[in-house]
Order: sequence, then C-alpha cells, then structure tokens
Amino acid sequence: MTGNTKAPSKFGVLLYPGFEPLDVFGPIEALQMLSREVKLDIAWIGPTLDPVSTVPKDIPMNTTGSQVATLVVPTHTYDNPPKDLEVLLVPGGIGTTGEAHALAGPVEFIKDIYPKLSYLITICTGAELAARSGVLDGKRATANKDTWKTTTALRPQVNWVRMARYVVDGNCWTSGGVSAGIDATLAWIAHIYGEEVARRGANFMEYEWRDDRNWDPFAYMFGDGVTI
Amino acid sequence: MTGNTKAPSKFGVLLYPGFEPLDVFGPIEALQMLSREVKLDIAWIGPTLDPVSTVPKDIPMNTTGSQVATLVVPTHTYDNPPKDLEVLLVPGGIGTTGEAHALAGPVEFIKDIYPKLSYLITICTGAELAARSGVLDGKRATANKDTWKTTTALRPQVNWVRMARYVVDGNCWTSGGVSAGIDATLAWIAHIYGEEVARRGANFMEYEWRDDRNWDPFAYMFGDGVTI
Repeated sequence: MTGNTKAPSKFGVLLYPGFEPLDVFGPIEALQMLSREVKLDIAWIGPTLDPVSTVPKDIPMNTTGSQVATLVVPTHTYDNPPKDLEVLLVPGGIGTTGEAHALAGPVEFIKDIYPKLSYLITICTGAELAARSGVLDGKRATANKDTWKTTTALRPQVNWVRMARYVVDGNCWTSGGVSAGIDATLAWIAHIYGEEVARRGANFMEYEWRDDRNWDPFAYMFGDGVTI
Repeated sequence: MTGNTKAPSKFGVLLYPGFEPLDVFGPIEALQMLSREVKLDIAWIGPTLDPVSTVPKDIPMNTTGSQVATLVVPTHTYDNPPKDLEVLLVPGGIGTTGEAHALAGPVEFIKDIYPKLSYLITICTGAELAARSGVLDGKRATANKDTWKTTTALRPQVNWVRMARYVVDGNCWTSGGVSAGIDATLAWIAHIYGEEVARRGANFMEYEWRDDRNWDPFAYMFGDGVTI
C-alpha cells in the first residue's frame, strides 16, 4: 500500500500518569522509522498540556523509593485532540491500575474518539482502558500476561485471547505486554505499507521482529494455572 | 550482588536534540523494572532544562515532512549534573550526525564526567559521542551496524568490534543499534544484581532477552562488503 494516499498518517498517543515507557516508545520508534519513508504526524494527547509522568502521584510505583520518572510533553489534550486523528495508540502501565474515577479521562476519551478512528492499537494493559470504554466488546483481544486475570476480569464481554503476541479483530490491534507493542506496530505497518517497509524499519532498529502473532512464551511463563 | 549497598544506583541519561527514542526508553524500561526491587534514581541531563526533542532543528530528520517529535523534560543540565552520578547512559540518534561544534556540549560533558563514573553505557551511535570524547580510546567497543563505516572512521583509536550485540571493556558497555541497548542494559543488570533479577525484568517486559553478546545478525545484514 506504499504510496497509497489513503493510508493512515495521523497518529496519536494517549498519555496518562503512570504510562509504561516502552509501551509508548517501542511503537513510536517503529513509526519514526516509517516516517523516513512516508509523511506521518504523531500527536501526544494528555489530560492537560503539562508534562505527563511515567510515575503517577497517587499509586505506589514501588516500595523502594526509587526516582525513575520520565516526563513527556503533550501536544494536545483529551478535550482538544487533533480533529483528523486516524490511529490511536493506547499504552499500558501502572497508571491503569488506579481507581475507576482516576481512569475516567482516558476511558471516556477512547469511547468518544473510537468511532472516528481508522485503527486502535493497544499495548499491554492499555487494553484495560480500551476494554473499560466498551470498544472491545464482542471482539477478540489480548493484553499483558502477568496481569491476565485482573485485566480479563474487568470486562468479560471481550473475547480475551491469552496465547498471542498480538491480536487483530476488525480495526482493533491489541498486543501482549510491553515489548509486544513493537511487534504489533511492525505488523500493522506491514499490513498497511507492506512487509518490506516494516522489515526495513525493524532492521534499522536492529530489532528481531516476531512477526508470528501466535508466538508467546510469556503466556506459558505467567501461566499461573490458567488453561491456554 | 543484590542487597549490595555498593551497587550503583545513581543513573543519568544524556539528552541532546535528535536522540533516538528507543535508545533511551529500552534501557529505561529495564531500569524501571529493576527499580521495583532496588532503590535507584534516574536523572535526565539536557543542555538546558527546556524539553529536549527527538527531532533536531538543524538536521533534516527526513524528507517526508513528518512531525514525529517527542519532547522529554530534563531534571539536570550538562553544567549541573547530579554530583553523585554513577552510571551514564548515552543514546544514539540522528543528532549525533551533526557538525562537530553542535556536538561539543554532549562530548565535553562525557569527557568531564567519565572519570567520576562507575559505568558508561552507550547505545547505537551514542558510541560516536563517547568516542569523540576520547574515553573509548584503546578500548573495545561496538555501535550501530548500518552506520558502521562512518562511526568507526571518526575515531580509529578505538578497537571497534563489528560482530557484537554489545561489548564490555572495563567499565564501558557499548551496544549495537537501537534495540541492542535493551540487551546490553539487561546484561549490565545481570552483572551487578545477578541473572535472576535481569531475567525477571526481561520477562515482565515480555522481552526475548538476547543474552549472548556475540549474537548479531545485523552485522551481516548491514555487511556492506566489510569483513567481519
């Protein structure tokens, strides 16, 4: 589809306090490689225009007292996203484990914008936010394997697929934990622009792309007695 | 070495315009996983306290007109880094391809702080900045494979090792391109805290850790007629 002017080019990243760094910057790296070949825009969508931290204020990040926050500057807000957004990336992270009221902003944003999107891509527990919004109801989806029970219990209306690096159902692409977002995004790029473009990006990233969506040793690793 | 109070815990990331996102946030993800188990602090060190962009102003990022910049907020500056910094991470990126005068800030910073460090970790063309500073002279080191000729020509005094996911010489850990920084950082964590800690982090990242430092298909892929 290279050269296809209808290929989506307007991307947005949903930022919220406590997003996981690699959930965001793995896919972003793949898109940045793609941006060498085709024009694309990435919007950073936060609650406000204030920098968004990977460490949320009201959730204990860890018990070690570590100071590991990354601060990323949004370009847009939930209330005022780009009007022509086509692809939304929803990262996971410790921030998704907050109280429902604290998640209302991101969840409502997904619910409101989904009908206008061409594609939704979730990474790790980003699927929890999408699931809470209802947009995954009746669809096949996957998520982080370590937190599988918690994630899937949140929304039984979703057809959760445990053994998967990533899952595609309609325009919803959902990936396993953290690093799996890189494979899902590369697969999405292959779907839209062809495998050659995706593989070139993976190679420049010196990344061993797992292009088999059923490859998932982590489903076994965090099996926890669950039948796969 | 878990529980060893002498294990390094004060990390810094060198930021400059045009740093590569995954060069930074792959290692940062590994360190964030580590921070669940041990106390560690990460400082973000930029030219000033203004947000630092992945897209430099004076270097053509691409010819497609894409808008893909990420803005990260520093906590410290080159002139005023944390006094007790122990480990410095130096990412690569398009910003390392600038004119020498534009790179003077990061290069001088590395030169000045290296004698106080316990470890230096470079990712991708971050090795170019370290090499320019002279701290890799006489040491074995590796870097990005696609830009190998340019990188190695910059500083022949370094014993460049082409076929390597990462290289360790003394307290200098240098990794191949982009994703290789994740493997190098996990290996460094294993070196300091033991393999179990590193592997636990890799698993929570759902990352297929390449713990063989000689694994490097990209040295062949970008071989370009160079004898390995």
